[in-house]
Amino acid sequence: MKLVSYFWQGGESWGAVVDGSVRDLARVSGIATLAEFLGSDHFAEREALAARAPVVAPFEQMTLLPVIPRPEKIVCVVRNYLDHHREVVAVGLDLSLSEQPPIFIRVWRSQCAHNAPIIRPAVSDSLDWEGELAVVIGRGGRDIPEAQAHEHVAGYACYNDASVREWQFHAKQIAAGKNFESTGAFGPWMVTADEIPFGTKLKLQTQVNGRTVQSSDTSHMIFGVAKLINYASTLFTLSPGDVLVTGTPAGVGYSNQPPTYLQPGDVCEVSIERVGTLRNVVAAQPVARD
Amino acid sequence: MKLVSYFWQGGESWGAVVDGSVRDLARVSGIATLAEFLGSDHFAEREALAARAPVVAPFEQMTLLPVIPRPEKIVCVVRNYLDHHREVVAVGLDLSLSEQPPIFIRVWRSQCAHNAPIIRPAVSDSLDWEGELAVVIGRGGRDIPEAQAHEHVAGYACYNDASVREWQFHAKQIAAGKNFESTGAFGPWMVTADEIPFGTKLKLQTQVNGRTVQSSDTSHMIFGVAKLINYASTLFTLSPGDVLVTGTPAGVGYSNQPPTYLQPGDVCEVSIERVGTLRNVVAAQPVARD
Repeated sequence: MKLVSYFWQGGESWGAVVDGSVRDLARVSGIATLAEFLGSDHFAEREALAARAPVVAPFEQMTLLPVIPRPEKIVCVVRNYLDHHREVVAVGLDLSLSEQPPIFIRVWRSQCAHNAPIIRPAVSDSLDWEGELAVVIGRGGRDIPEAQAHEHVAGYACYNDASVREWQFHAKQIAAGKNFESTGAFGPWMVTADEIPFGTKLKLQTQVNGRTVQSSDTSHMIFGVAKLINYASTLFTLSPGDVLVTGTPAGVGYSNQPPTYLQPGDVCEVSIERVGTLRNVVAAQPVARD
Repeated sequence: MKLVSYFWQGGESWGAVVDGSVRDLARVSGIATLAEFLGSDHFAEREALAARAPVVAPFEQMTLLPVIPRPEKIVCVVRNYLDHHREVVAVGLDLSLSEQPPIFIRVWRSQCAHNAPIIRPAVSDSLDWEGELAVVIGRGGRDIPEAQAHEHVAGYACYNDASVREWQFHAKQIAAGKNFESTGAFGPWMVTADEIPFGTKLKLQTQVNGRTVQSSDTSHMIFGVAKLINYASTLFTLSPGDVLVTGTPAGVGYSNQPPTYLQPGDVCEVSIERVGTLRNVVAAQPVARD
């Protein structure tokens, strides 16, 4: 099942995409947010709920939100594909592979939805794409063993972990370059985990203006999803709707010589096999708000 | 005025500490959280509200929450005191000073309250103290100029940015070691900004079991509060209740030879002039939950 969060008639809601239409599962479940639903007993009844949920509108007419608009935690992994590690070392990053997953945290305000603009900030022209698989947590937990990790996955989505390289590197920590508002695209939907057996090799491609810039598959992750869930849950209790963004393969703009960055008007698409295609147009940050 | 968040009769609330008692400002203002209050027009009426708010209980009897229990964003600065930068370089960290503030993000679940235990995780014995000044944002905003930064400060509090050094360093990003659950102590209260003119030099001390381990003042920050507000608001819109944790001076356990880390039972106190004293006892993580 495909689950989405969306704006409708001035408010936020969430539901399922069935036969090209969005059905309002918030109304039939009485649960306000998709994150809350993923952690509830009602998640197991999603097919029955969707069958009797009212149709809101055709999917193509909906204004989507990020799949989970305000995750409690967004845990992202750095250099989790060997070819990407090698390409950034090749252009000068002095980094060795890590024995544990290098992570950073995104704030929810850095996210944007499918079809919403990825905003290039006014302070830098070094905005870069990173197509990634996002894992959405269902049942929460702490200290989850790798062997049980799959029980905590509610589903999968596409993520564009768009990054402002200059701000990622001008201090020794990358959090700044990874947290500009409206840069982390997340959508269009999540596909529930029952449709994709845990550990399935999924092709992942990123296109910019129709040209394929990244092409890999999820079997090339250095730290797999089970390890990432184990690692993150060692730090803190994972909660329903938490998001793990699992790293990007080779082919980012930064690794080109000279680097090629996103310009206003560019179209970015992240496609993951059996999951879907996330599409965003790049826009310049509006000038001088206060 | 001193503002707190607390548990009372099975629920969360917030209020003011007046003459040693806590008054329930949630009830008289009709605003559910302290964060929301800080961004509202009612913040300017806090004295009048406190005067007619019902007394809940003596302060000493309250079970506090972190001052802001679930900030939208917790932005922390790394090596923001020169003496601390020098001490970690002296023990082997290969780092230069940065031209911009190096930041990381804490998740709210990593926080704990005054008098609540700081939890040493089961996976590491390298838990270290870091006494810091926390700045709590009132009015939100994006791209805030340094000259206007003071208008966005609601108040100040003590923070113990307790850090698991091993996990901070075993990957190239420090977010993991900075995000273990119940390590970021925040309290006991915030003192509103009207009581502390912007830019006041405030003594900052950390004691472990009564012994002073850190002693400095906030004038030694490399990047001051105005710059930090400007920098963070360049990334994203700051929101009421957001917290900037401004870095720690020299004297962390990691810089001792050999390093000295926190043990269960240790008492940590962070004292900041005109703000207060935050006290926590270290406890071991309970074994194997699921």
